[in-house]
Amino acid sequence: MVTSNKIKAAQFVPCRNSAAMVSSSTLAAAKKAAELRSSGIQVIDLSVGEPDFDTPEFIKDLAIKALKQGYTKYTPSAGAETFRSNIARYFSENFDSDIRPTEVVAACGGKQALFNAICTLLDSGDECLIPSPYWVTFPEIVKFIGAKPIFINTAQNDFLLTAEMVAAAATDKTRALIVNSPNNPSGRVISPEEFRRIVEVCAEREIFVIADECYLYFVYPPARVFSAASLEPELRQWVAIAGSFSKTFSMTGWRIGFTIACEAWSKEIAKLQSHSATHPTSFVQIACAEALCHTDEMRAALDSMLQEYLRRRDYFVPALKRINGFELIMPEGAFYAFVDVRQLLQGGFANSAAVADALLAEAHIVVTDGAGFGSDGFLRFSYAASMEKLEKAVSEMKRIFGVK
Amino acid sequence: MVTSNKIKAAQFVPCRNSAAMVSSSTLAAAKKAAELRSSGIQVIDLSVGEPDFDTPEFIKDLAIKALKQGYTKYTPSAGAETFRSNIARYFSENFDSDIRPTEVVAACGGKQALFNAICTLLDSGDECLIPSPYWVTFPEIVKFIGAKPIFINTAQNDFLLTAEMVAAAATDKTRALIVNSPNNPSGRVISPEEFRRIVEVCAEREIFVIADECYLYFVYPPARVFSAASLEPELRQWVAIAGSFSKTFSMTGWRIGFTIACEAWSKEIAKLQSHSATHPTSFVQIACAEALCHTDEMRAALDSMLQEYLRRRDYFVPALKRINGFELIMPEGAFYAFVDVRQLLQGGFANSAAVADALLAEAHIVVTDGAGFGSDGFLRFSYAASMEKLEKAVSEMKRIFGVK
Repeated sequence: MVTSNKIKAAQFVPCRNSAAMVSSSTLAAAKKAAELRSSGIQVIDLSVGEPDFDTPEFIKDLAIKALKQGYTKYTPSAGAETFRSNIARYFSENFDSDIRPTEVVAACGGKQALFNAICTLLDSGDECLIPSPYWVTFPEIVKFIGAKPIFINTAQNDFLLTAEMVAAAATDKTRALIVNSPNNPSGRVISPEEFRRIVEVCAEREIFVIADECYLYFVYPPARVFSAASLEPELRQWVAIAGSFSKTFSMTGWRIGFTIACEAWSKEIAKLQSHSATHPTSFVQIACAEALCHTDEMRAALDSMLQEYLRRRDYFVPALKRINGFELIMPEGAFYAFVDVRQLLQGGFANSAAVADALLAEAHIVVTDGAGFGSDGFLRFSYAASMEKLEKAVSEMKRIFGVK
Repeated sequence: MVTSNKIKAAQFVPCRNSAAMVSSSTLAAAKKAAELRSSGIQVIDLSVGEPDFDTPEFIKDLAIKALKQGYTKYTPSAGAETFRSNIARYFSENFDSDIRPTEVVAACGGKQALFNAICTLLDSGDECLIPSPYWVTFPEIVKFIGAKPIFINTAQNDFLLTAEMVAAAATDKTRALIVNSPNNPSGRVISPEEFRRIVEVCAEREIFVIADECYLYFVYPPARVFSAASLEPELRQWVAIAGSFSKTFSMTGWRIGFTIACEAWSKEIAKLQSHSATHPTSFVQIACAEALCHTDEMRAALDSMLQEYLRRRDYFVPALKRINGFELIMPEGAFYAFVDVRQLLQGGFANSAAVADALLAEAHIVVTDGAGFGSDGFLRFSYAASMEKLEKAVSEMKRIFGVK
């Protein structure tokens, strides 16, 4: 029994760092879709940045094997030795590099990899360059740690980030640049040559580069797969790679990724992790470490997904281009179409969020508003959805907006 | 080829918040043990806070089932609906409470639960009360978010925290108290009556209580199992519970835990998670949600572990008491013996770390120095190790230090 009469109703007020963040708008859209679905409505969900394939059987089997073998205990907070060494070897072999296991730290997905890299680097007052449109989480982590996101608008250059744009935005306070190529949401891929120039411009100014490579393999010819791991050592020392298995092997729910960074940074990341998530799930680490040795199965799984995404892109993007008021470039990577709907704003819609709301209300199509990516006036359509859904969506949008 | 001649060698300097943290000393001890083992040395590892049992088969089977059923996708960042509702129901039924699913947020282990709760609450400048000895991670998370740990020394009171001690330590700046009962490392269990008084004292002062319940069920009679979930609503609104499956079901490597807190706090926690780990592994959440419905199997698994820990405690603690220079209380919970070795410091050892080093050098026994828990002069021995290892350790320590 409570005896005190001095107890007030608790008013939870979040701390400033946490309050500075806004919720992930992509996850919010996914939640909206899930809520509609659970109330029995047939939803065409084009919001989610998640492959619609199940994880390849051979990876599931490796996880089951590891679980049965008793890999149920703590691993080191930097990750199991075999995970670190196999990632290092894989990147060294595939990207003509020399990554040491001590430069790899396991993370609970690519997002945690970014969180770990950013939260060990940035002080309050530091500026962090973020090309816009950006993945929603970049500025939120930067704000959480008390630093300041400085946006570089790439929309005026067809979403292509250049070294010159980075040089122009850098100040004495700039401590980091976050680059995401292939880009979510724009689908742009930075060429290896331009990427190298961007890192050079940063290294000259002692600016660290955080390279989000979560769509590493989702590149459509003639664009080329490129990892910052292949940079020369004097450039790579300025880079932390945030890598992920989530999209590559359709295992978003498994929560497994990694950072590749210099040893000093990696140690700091492992320390932060030793006081937060500890490490990603032990038998998931073991399964992924082993999967990297199954080269043929990995390649086959990836190729079949890539082929399907390409087929969808080549149907969906031209179809979107024919919708009244829709403008977009052909994405070179990832699995998103980033549509400029600003023409529709002259026709009665207040902003792109209102266009998204109309799609939801009139056709149960869920897409993500560009404002969350720093690009009001745009909508992101994911084509990590079945061809049937894409066709249905196109037909509904033709009905709502008409064709050119 | 790098063309610039202006590129310096990168000097990674961590940000202040990260630099303020020290590495987890318990994980560091575990790492030392693993390194010795991998160099072929037979180690008696009494350092690790990890059950030496494998995860019960029925939980493994549930995870395999969920994996095969395709639970490989994102869940909401607060956790799968079934995870949240089953935890809520389980705590409501078992602790005579009324927890709503919206008050539960899944976490990547109990440590991540604490990280999430603390990092959404504390501002820089806020004071956070931490009874000492404390689990190593508490002050580090508080420092990471820029707040100030204020220690309450319980050693002078046989490690028993009282409401009076909390009241005496509270100031205008105090925003939170972190309580861990059963306590790691001391083994002390706060009685339900005292716990209620402690929360009352805090609530009167508008201080939030973060209750680390990771050893919830590891209590030896006559001490009683108690969860803050059973507090009256006007007190519980001031409490966030950090719960974990890790120790309870011997699944430390799985990384699954949860917070139970008011809805406003839970929303903030889910938001932080939506920009960090996203959520714990999807099929692990599903397996744990379902495990909670297998009441008999859960109880049987837990009972057999508890019986074995009790047997070990009843052998190990009296045996330690007979070693020259060792003083300790009988632990009421968790699976640690916290040994006062200060008498040995008069006999040539500089500090308790030197005693730990001697155990390592002379008998390959790995224990954790008390300094990491805020109690220099003490050593923590985990009895989550086989009876054989415990007997071997006792025999070696008799040899080194002699008996009383």
